[in-house]
Amino acid sequence: MTVDPRDGRRRQTHLAETSDAELGRLGGLWPDATRWLVGLGRAGRAEVLDAVAASLEASRAELVATAEAETGLARGRLDGELTRAILQFRMFGDVLRDGGYLEAAIDHAGPTPLGPAPDVRRMLVPIGPVAVFGASNFPFAFSVAGGDTASALAAGCPVVVKAHPSHPLTSHASAVAIESAVSRLGGPPGVLMLVYGQEAGLALVRLPAIRAVALTGSLAAASAVQTAIAEREDPIPFYGELSSVNPVVILPGAAMARGDQIAEGLFASFTGSGGQLCTKPGLVFVPAGHAGDGLVAVLRERVASASGVVLLNERIRDSFLDGRARLEAAGARVTASPDVAEEPGFTVAPTLLELDLPEVSDEIFDECFGPVTVIVRYADVTDLDRVLASVPPSLTGSIHLDSDDDPGTVRRLVDQLVERSGRLVFNGYPTGVRVSWAQHHGGPWPSTNSLHTSVGATAIRRFLRPLAWQDAPEWLLPEELRDGCTAVPRRVDGRLELAQP
Amino acid sequence: MTVDPRDGRRRQTHLAETSDAELGRLGGLWPDATRWLVGLGRAGRAEVLDAVAASLEASRAELVATAEAETGLARGRLDGELTRAILQFRMFGDVLRDGGYLEAAIDHAGPTPLGPAPDVRRMLVPIGPVAVFGASNFPFAFSVAGGDTASALAAGCPVVVKAHPSHPLTSHASAVAIESAVSRLGGPPGVLMLVYGQEAGLALVRLPAIRAVALTGSLAAASAVQTAIAEREDPIPFYGELSSVNPVVILPGAAMARGDQIAEGLFASFTGSGGQLCTKPGLVFVPAGHAGDGLVAVLRERVASASGVVLLNERIRDSFLDGRARLEAAGARVTASPDVAEEPGFTVAPTLLELDLPEVSDEIFDECFGPVTVIVRYADVTDLDRVLASVPPSLTGSIHLDSDDDPGTVRRLVDQLVERSGRLVFNGYPTGVRVSWAQHHGGPWPSTNSLHTSVGATAIRRFLRPLAWQDAPEWLLPEELRDGCTAVPRRVDGRLELAQP
Repeated sequence: MTVDPRDGRRRQTHLAETSDAELGRLGGLWPDATRWLVGLGRAGRAEVLDAVAASLEASRAELVATAEAETGLARGRLDGELTRAILQFRMFGDVLRDGGYLEAAIDHAGPTPLGPAPDVRRMLVPIGPVAVFGASNFPFAFSVAGGDTASALAAGCPVVVKAHPSHPLTSHASAVAIESAVSRLGGPPGVLMLVYGQEAGLALVRLPAIRAVALTGSLAAASAVQTAIAEREDPIPFYGELSSVNPVVILPGAAMARGDQIAEGLFASFTGSGGQLCTKPGLVFVPAGHAGDGLVAVLRERVASASGVVLLNERIRDSFLDGRARLEAAGARVTASPDVAEEPGFTVAPTLLELDLPEVSDEIFDECFGPVTVIVRYADVTDLDRVLASVPPSLTGSIHLDSDDDPGTVRRLVDQLVERSGRLVFNGYPTGVRVSWAQHHGGPWPSTNSLHTSVGATAIRRFLRPLAWQDAPEWLLPEELRDGCTAVPRRVDGRLELAQP
Repeated sequence: MTVDPRDGRRRQTHLAETSDAELGRLGGLWPDATRWLVGLGRAGRAEVLDAVAASLEASRAELVATAEAETGLARGRLDGELTRAILQFRMFGDVLRDGGYLEAAIDHAGPTPLGPAPDVRRMLVPIGPVAVFGASNFPFAFSVAGGDTASALAAGCPVVVKAHPSHPLTSHASAVAIESAVSRLGGPPGVLMLVYGQEAGLALVRLPAIRAVALTGSLAAASAVQTAIAEREDPIPFYGELSSVNPVVILPGAAMARGDQIAEGLFASFTGSGGQLCTKPGLVFVPAGHAGDGLVAVLRERVASASGVVLLNERIRDSFLDGRARLEAAGARVTASPDVAEEPGFTVAPTLLELDLPEVSDEIFDECFGPVTVIVRYADVTDLDRVLASVPPSLTGSIHLDSDDDPGTVRRLVDQLVERSGRLVFNGYPTGVRVSWAQHHGGPWPSTNSLHTSVGATAIRRFLRPLAWQDAPEWLLPEELRDGCTAVPRRVDGRLELAQP
């Protein structure tokens, strides 16, 4: 079944929940799929990723239209997101061609203070079949055609995506686009597959052949997956991108110098995509008094005159309404919220909540997915130290500063944010995660459950494991570990060497 | 209490189990210790590691004598192990000076297909206080002065080691040597600390400030730690180096060409250090017939004329006797075992067990810590495929081959071992782990519980987490991420650049 969140209409689809028998059949396809992916080598897999990117591009019109009807997200946003998903496949193609991700290292045999030492060579190898749980809020970039799929295929691992129930047809169309690129290049079935249904997803996690799980979703979803992993004989790595309140600190100097502009930026950041981004700023610390008043006044005005927002599904709509009510119960006052028609479909009103720092309790720090943010007014920057220590660690921590703001204070607050964030944003907004080599999209619990990133070049490392070869005959070594190879950067006898093109 | 395993004598020590109150006091020392370690920077921490190495060297006589009385390990072995521990501190000093471990990356701001992108810079930062559980079998190199401590301190993390009850005085003396080096350089208390007692160790794991746990030990110990982690509010990474049977495959050509030599190598490898190494070869596949017979005959002779071996403690002795009995019950026959006096102390006889491949059941694959190995005779190399698929994944997989052995067979067996090993050893023995940049000491479950190494330069990554800075003012960036810095290798706009000395 698929639901159009713009009008709440339900339609049957041809996509049935995956049965245990079907799951067994999928598992049988992995050995061939793995052999094919690994056998292609880096250059071959880069070609596959490029072909997938081209195939997604060729299906753009169908993909965007399908996603629009299933998510209620704006066409422009979906168009941009698909571009981003395509770029991710191309980026991992570049990562493969570069080869640095292999972390190739060679220590030649030789004398040491402990006697003669053997030749030891190390590099990363694919971990094996990967289960991916697609996110509701990114039907492309964190779903079937998302970064988890791109990085796992790049690593050489077959992928099974548990399709998100909010966009089954988009998931299916994405898989068709990817599979067609794979099969045009001679790939066997089983390189990318889908399962449908919650039970099938958890059964997938319990399959012995699955070697890692990646999930972008809620703490509750992560807990269900963790329980399934605990039922396995062996533990497997679980990469969860979970809950994040993304605090933003506006320092007095910044509020004074450009309060209006910051208000506009915050409005765009917390309402964009219906506030349904994991990096949405959910908590904004604004100075009390004149400078902060100006910023807040502009923000209230923008929110009060905003349109209604269609949320992704009924559960998210209900959970938004509950969450907003909980924030109010915790003492936050609604200071702006337009009157919008909430029928038909899952439309809600963007909402601004406010309270003063002395009124803050831990309940204020609960993530509320959707177009809402909480403004906390502080009288003195020194009060921020204490309160920031209570804010749950997040994917991001943002700070707006100006030359008027005291450098010592800034340094202290940044040090606090370092402890509790995966990405520090200066004079900006946490939404809009750049896809690039240096990106890190992760952070301490509860923003993620391990030390990983799900965006950026190093996301590939989640699906690799180290392997060492000791005194191996040259013909049994991977090409990248043979003495003459100059195709990839390597650490030889402790010294890093660049690739020679 | 400390026990001399050579005669079983128990002596009281001044070292009491750590109380909850004391644990609370330790926790209070971490903020200062962290600030000091981080504030030192890479060069400063490298100096600390060098000073620790020198301090351990200066205490060599006392350390080795203390460990000898507590472990029953031979003086020469302990001397070598201390040298190895010292080298580990020096190696991580080199790792810090090199700076590549930071994985520094810079993506400058610029236009992209998704619009203008911000400046993003990433590098690894310390994870925070680390709990280490020392191993029984390496009183230096995997204990208080071990690689976990060296790599965590290098990363910038304070360390608390739960001292192994088999060598409390060695643990204490090691801590004194490390602490004296730290305090000579002006370090505060809390950089390295010890706790004593099982309960205190688990209470340590539950302390909110602890950010990671490293353990070298049994599956049972790992399970207790995992349970303690599950009682925390937040999950933390747990790096366990656990159980490993380390299969060795002798191919017919190799057995024919140098059976005697292989027998000698195997004997040394499975009896060295009393067979109490996590890389001990516990399972050896030897061809049936003439070539294999010669090898096995030499091995039997060496074992039959061997002396008794003192095991580390009473529990390990009991568990060795139980394990050997279980292997016999599973159908392995004792074919060589000298008569040795088993009193006083924890002395046992090195033992050779044998059976034919068709007799093999899964019970034969249980790790038995101590001087025992199981020889499995195979009639046809093609039979090895099936049986290797049942051997539990291990830290190592070894293969002995000769030019006579069929390359296709070798390739197939190596592919099997790749799936199930952390290190492949060719024409050698798995014991004796080289400490070097390219080393990997890990492997799939049950050899470890995550994708880590506990030996080699990349062991430091266990105690680091990625952090990204977006549009940060230069003065707030770490030195290694500023534009002009050439001190460390970096990936700038996707291109790897070497450090400029």
